[in-house]
Amino acid sequence: MNVTVRGKTHHYRTVSFDTERNAVMLIEQRLLPHKFEIVASRTFRETAAAIHDMIVRGAGAIGATAAYGLAQGARAFPLTALAKFSQHVEFVYQTLKAARPTAIDPVNAMNQVRAAMTAGETVAEQQALALAAAEEFANEDVRHCQEIGRHGAKLIRNGMNVLTHCNAGWLAFVDVGSATAPMYSAQSQGKNFHVYCDETRPRSQGATLTAWELAQQKLAHQIIADNAAGHLMQRGKIDLVIVGSDRTLGRTGEVANKIGTYTKAVLARRHRIPFYIAIPLSTIDWRLKCGFDIPIEERSESEVLGAWGDVANGKRTYVQVANPGSGAFNPGFDVTPAELITGIITPVGIFKPRELWARRRELGFAG
Amino acid sequence: MNVTVRGKTHHYRTVSFDTERNAVMLIEQRLLPHKFEIVASRTFRETAAAIHDMIVRGAGAIGATAAYGLAQGARAFPLTALAKFSQHVEFVYQTLKAARPTAIDPVNAMNQVRAAMTAGETVAEQQALALAAAEEFANEDVRHCQEIGRHGAKLIRNGMNVLTHCNAGWLAFVDVGSATAPMYSAQSQGKNFHVYCDETRPRSQGATLTAWELAQQKLAHQIIADNAAGHLMQRGKIDLVIVGSDRTLGRTGEVANKIGTYTKAVLARRHRIPFYIAIPLSTIDWRLKCGFDIPIEERSESEVLGAWGDVANGKRTYVQVANPGSGAFNPGFDVTPAELITGIITPVGIFKPRELWARRRELGFAG
Repeated sequence: MNVTVRGKTHHYRTVSFDTERNAVMLIEQRLLPHKFEIVASRTFRETAAAIHDMIVRGAGAIGATAAYGLAQGARAFPLTALAKFSQHVEFVYQTLKAARPTAIDPVNAMNQVRAAMTAGETVAEQQALALAAAEEFANEDVRHCQEIGRHGAKLIRNGMNVLTHCNAGWLAFVDVGSATAPMYSAQSQGKNFHVYCDETRPRSQGATLTAWELAQQKLAHQIIADNAAGHLMQRGKIDLVIVGSDRTLGRTGEVANKIGTYTKAVLARRHRIPFYIAIPLSTIDWRLKCGFDIPIEERSESEVLGAWGDVANGKRTYVQVANPGSGAFNPGFDVTPAELITGIITPVGIFKPRELWARRRELGFAG
Repeated sequence: MNVTVRGKTHHYRTVSFDTERNAVMLIEQRLLPHKFEIVASRTFRETAAAIHDMIVRGAGAIGATAAYGLAQGARAFPLTALAKFSQHVEFVYQTLKAARPTAIDPVNAMNQVRAAMTAGETVAEQQALALAAAEEFANEDVRHCQEIGRHGAKLIRNGMNVLTHCNAGWLAFVDVGSATAPMYSAQSQGKNFHVYCDETRPRSQGATLTAWELAQQKLAHQIIADNAAGHLMQRGKIDLVIVGSDRTLGRTGEVANKIGTYTKAVLARRHRIPFYIAIPLSTIDWRLKCGFDIPIEERSESEVLGAWGDVANGKRTYVQVANPGSGAFNPGFDVTPAELITGIITPVGIFKPRELWARRRELGFAG
């Protein structure tokens, strides 16, 4: 999407590839929104470190980064012996996989690249196929987000106030984003509307990443404390909620997403406000049978006990806000039941959450 | 309540009076929880400034501070001419009133002191009566909180997890607090329970003041992000909610309190968790007929856009968290309807919110 740097507006992807330099180009997300910087990762080891250190985050974005990283590693192989090359590729694959061991997207993305490579009969052919497959993975991620936007834009009407939570924006994907896609699409159709961004404590991704994105796209928005959404709904100031999801259960329609999502869904139901989830198909989990089986990561207490401010010495400063003698409990995600969800916006259309299983063939279920 | 400084535990009130030095003694709340300091306000002008600059905050606490400030000003009058003295007292009254012009508690407290002074026939007698009345106001505030504690403690059973929002603790009163009073009382009865403190963005009074209070009282507690309460309720980890209130409508049972209170009430109802308000009678508004008529203060954007950390150079440091180009919407309070409130804990007993009007004589309605 667009970013304006020193008065000039350019189009950027979160992740892209510089063929000449054999480098993965990444937006340095740890400095946002205070500083915009593109970093060039010149080796697959650097790319693995970028995933591990969260220079890049978000399902689609780390998938594409790993795909490019695998192609990058393959292309750096200087010899022509195919057996040695295959060993090298396996090592690159394992290195990138180990960078974020619980994430499924890098693995799926790299498997796609590896499958494409098998058609090549020489090292050079396989190297070329790897890059082509990585580019295709990234382009497909963008197309899927655009399709989410096309379907979801119909929900946004002139004069609406739309609430979103956390960041399911283009920074979490290669471009466009999931929850933001309908907004960007509606904007391009000339619709006027206003977005409320939940701050999204404890990591404040709404106040930092989503607000930055919307500001860059010149989309009217205001940040609110997570505590304020209920009051706004009570006063008729929110017409539609769109959020992303880390994992949606295909069998039940339950949705795991950033902590606080469930609260907004409960509030939306009380006020009869439509509550939508926007997701690429890759985040549907067809296996689990119950939302209570989704593991809820307990994250560091320090996230709740403090906050991250402006960039100093190349890092965002951390301040301790809370009473130094007190501890915190910090669940990272929550689960919203199907009954609270109006619809699930996907690249292939909008579905009721309990419809997913019946429509599973359309939705890419391969079981 | 108790505060431990350098290993020694003392009992403090939020506000007290040093007769010998004619000084109002205040806990410097702006430095909490990072630094505990008692400041001596030596003149009524300093006391007015302390109210204005929020060294002291909270309904009961600023009421008592103003009452003491009026006595302090009266006692500083060096002459014996009664007419001049009355002029001086009027000036002190107006100075203290102007320190927080929208607050009703300082005015009510000072009116009580002035009424008591009329029984004195000399300047010296009136000065003595002023101090006695101010002490009585403060002691009555403490007694009322203790009575809230006595009634509310019955709600807390062994093994419970209790949620509270913002700070309606002893720092907001002269001692004991309102929402915290049942907890302190239950603790003194030997009950074991655990408290979750909502962080309470944007000003984080839960993470700072309430967590500090509970830590000083050695009450088991954890801070949670405001986003986490819904998830905890869904998983059966919250058994009871107790919060304070800035204004409760005697005619309808609606409750205005810190932004986010309404959200917790909606969540509690969904999970059938008892939701209680704890208040002194002085916060009941017998006049307003509709919660929508309660003015909702819109506070500074900077509260939402950043956070306050540790103390440096005598002040808490502020960091900008949010995207620098984005604005915020920051309502300070919300209104919870009577139907979501299980009961209202007062010094004279626990009432259903819609019972207040019928029981108004018991509850101090003088209309």
